[in-house]
Amino acid sequence: MTRPLSVAVAGLGTVGAGLLTLLRDNAELIAARAGRPIVVTAVAARDRNRDRGVSLDGLRWYEDPVAMAADAQADVIVELIGGSEGPARALVEAALAAGKPVVTANKALLALHGTALAGQAEASGATLAYEAAVAGGIPAIKALREGLAANGIRRVTGILNGTCNYILTCMREQGREFGDVLAEAQKLGYAEADPSFDIDGIDAAHKLAILAALAFGRPVDFPAVHVEGIRAISALDIRLADQLGYRIKLLGIAERTEGGVATRVHPCMVPASHPIARVDGVFNAVVAEGDFVGRVVLEGRGAGAGPTASAVAADLIDIARGRATPVWGAAGAALTSIAAEPMERHHGAYYLRLMVLDRPGVIADVTGVLRDHGVSLESMIQRGRAPGEAVPVVLTTHACRESSMRAALARITALEAVLEPPALIRIETL
Amino acid sequence: MTRPLSVAVAGLGTVGAGLLTLLRDNAELIAARAGRPIVVTAVAARDRNRDRGVSLDGLRWYEDPVAMAADAQADVIVELIGGSEGPARALVEAALAAGKPVVTANKALLALHGTALAGQAEASGATLAYEAAVAGGIPAIKALREGLAANGIRRVTGILNGTCNYILTCMREQGREFGDVLAEAQKLGYAEADPSFDIDGIDAAHKLAILAALAFGRPVDFPAVHVEGIRAISALDIRLADQLGYRIKLLGIAERTEGGVATRVHPCMVPASHPIARVDGVFNAVVAEGDFVGRVVLEGRGAGAGPTASAVAADLIDIARGRATPVWGAAGAALTSIAAEPMERHHGAYYLRLMVLDRPGVIADVTGVLRDHGVSLESMIQRGRAPGEAVPVVLTTHACRESSMRAALARITALEAVLEPPALIRIETL
Repeated sequence: MTRPLSVAVAGLGTVGAGLLTLLRDNAELIAARAGRPIVVTAVAARDRNRDRGVSLDGLRWYEDPVAMAADAQADVIVELIGGSEGPARALVEAALAAGKPVVTANKALLALHGTALAGQAEASGATLAYEAAVAGGIPAIKALREGLAANGIRRVTGILNGTCNYILTCMREQGREFGDVLAEAQKLGYAEADPSFDIDGIDAAHKLAILAALAFGRPVDFPAVHVEGIRAISALDIRLADQLGYRIKLLGIAERTEGGVATRVHPCMVPASHPIARVDGVFNAVVAEGDFVGRVVLEGRGAGAGPTASAVAADLIDIARGRATPVWGAAGAALTSIAAEPMERHHGAYYLRLMVLDRPGVIADVTGVLRDHGVSLESMIQRGRAPGEAVPVVLTTHACRESSMRAALARITALEAVLEPPALIRIETL
Repeated sequence: MTRPLSVAVAGLGTVGAGLLTLLRDNAELIAARAGRPIVVTAVAARDRNRDRGVSLDGLRWYEDPVAMAADAQADVIVELIGGSEGPARALVEAALAAGKPVVTANKALLALHGTALAGQAEASGATLAYEAAVAGGIPAIKALREGLAANGIRRVTGILNGTCNYILTCMREQGREFGDVLAEAQKLGYAEADPSFDIDGIDAAHKLAILAALAFGRPVDFPAVHVEGIRAISALDIRLADQLGYRIKLLGIAERTEGGVATRVHPCMVPASHPIARVDGVFNAVVAEGDFVGRVVLEGRGAGAGPTASAVAADLIDIARGRATPVWGAAGAALTSIAAEPMERHHGAYYLRLMVLDRPGVIADVTGVLRDHGVSLESMIQRGRAPGEAVPVVLTTHACRESSMRAALARITALEAVLEPPALIRIETL
């Protein structure tokens, strides 16, 4: 057996501690599968005395993670600090500059600086691996970058944020409102104290930008991702979706279109019979559609110490075995810029739920506006009667342009009899 | 860009022709992802003049596939002949002996001769890749061997034969009997003229033997797999399963047990809410449960030209990139023999459906036998009454030993009032 692969880990939060535990608990089988032992020999974290439930005896200690990049005894740097800037970015840049392979779980870093980092990795010949950055323990990066590499990919769809999926699942199963479930999720540790990153869709958008780059062989383009979160989803809309045969999921969708590539993260109505509709709770899923392979669905835990450590360790095993892949699946020169399709050009069906004053003529006004903008109705339901009071009206449309829908929506919102901002949710046939 | 990878393909059936089409249609993106073009330069097949819908112009032609192993211009041999013996085996052995990497879709070959072939590959340093051998287009081998490699695997469960899953799905959706659906599947080309390999579970058992070897790091052990097919499944049992909240699926299950590793292929009742219960038609699924990653579900097309070619091409891209993995995930010396748990030692719940004479005392006789063998009942249903005639009685048991159940079953079958051989289907909680 060759000499051990010596690993330096920066960041000893839940995932960092989980990685140390995994590499120790499964040392023997990992050595067999990696062809050599994989051993953590150095760590960097702020507080040396915090109890992390894992022994740090005998490990070289760094208070400054960036200094660890120069550790001559470390074969690989694992970056688990997080954040697209600051020490995480500085450490990865320093390690790659030193020609040292890097494993990271940092989606923000890859989504925002992935092209520059790939250039650095290519120049120095060092691997930059990031299986843990997308969909936690699901080997989605490996599947897309290697397993399905022979396919032209038409579309990648994912449930990419476990916090959002957990909240939406609870809302549906318990009929509760968003704010209520979020507060509970924060108490249980399933949502951050500042939950914006998750629930406003940014985390999912980082991951989608990465998947889209891999799927379509083009430079990562986070700014092009259209992002909406789940704050505006109400228990009422979830209930109405159920009645229509849909589930509401926060999806990331990257697809080839006539105009190029569309990337979007937003709540979607998906048919209850589609495999992705049944991915509940903290589970993540990635669906890839290839021209030869057809539809492949991958499902598993998208976060947490164990699944994330599993993905980081898989990257380490690849490095130990000498299995290398360019950061974006192909050399930088082989990536092709493809135009980003703006959201206004999106073509799809819509669910529109209004709270209107129950009086004659309101529906005629609403449907008249939709007609004016060329939006064709598929169905209209007004449940219950309450003359002179607010009642929900649900409309579903046939596929139309987003720009038309938005123009119609602005006029509908301004109608006097429309009492609240309407709920607009895109219907995805998938 | 480096010089092209030159590929010699033996076997030009559906999959072989599909591979040629794929490598041509997606040549550009494959070259980008492989770091160099992948080009078929030689083929071997029996009939040169058959129209395969793909041009063979300019390719070196071999009538004897084994002779192709000596083709000095071929960098890789792709074996798509099939069968565990004869030319397929001879070609793979000859290629590995010559130090030439081999890609194959041949599960029978791997399941029966995998240990010897891996030894040959290890000795000569040549890769033997077989992503296409299990679950078609789903990158299941890569997921298990690389993506989840850091995990101790508790269990792998799979829907591994599309023909069986298609037949069971049709039987359920259309309420038809096995023989009827099989005949139609044969007409449609979803089942072979001699369907035994598929419907008797042998094909699934080959695949399960491969997955078990990878999951548990032990030499492949096909003879240890307990195999039952789907011939005995009736429309009645499928309907009754539905009423009990189950689906009947032909599963391959490999799991760690107290006594070692149990590997079994047989029809199972699985809870309708489990993801694997909803994998219908020709789709395949593989569920892996790891100690750190938890449950990962992979789903996709398990057969057909496109998905199989996609998997073969993924292996070729790995070879072009120089990404190598030992055949069984670890070097031969690092594999550990683990005892095979015999089926008699299986511990689980059972569904037992009898056709009994509707007269007093029959149920008492049946339940008395079960009691005598220590089998505890969970439920008993007799639907409808028809004094003096045959009526179905369904019993479900709590978990018990297979040996106890079999002993009880033999006695129940011999009861005078039991009119047909009973249907016994294992219930899997998963």
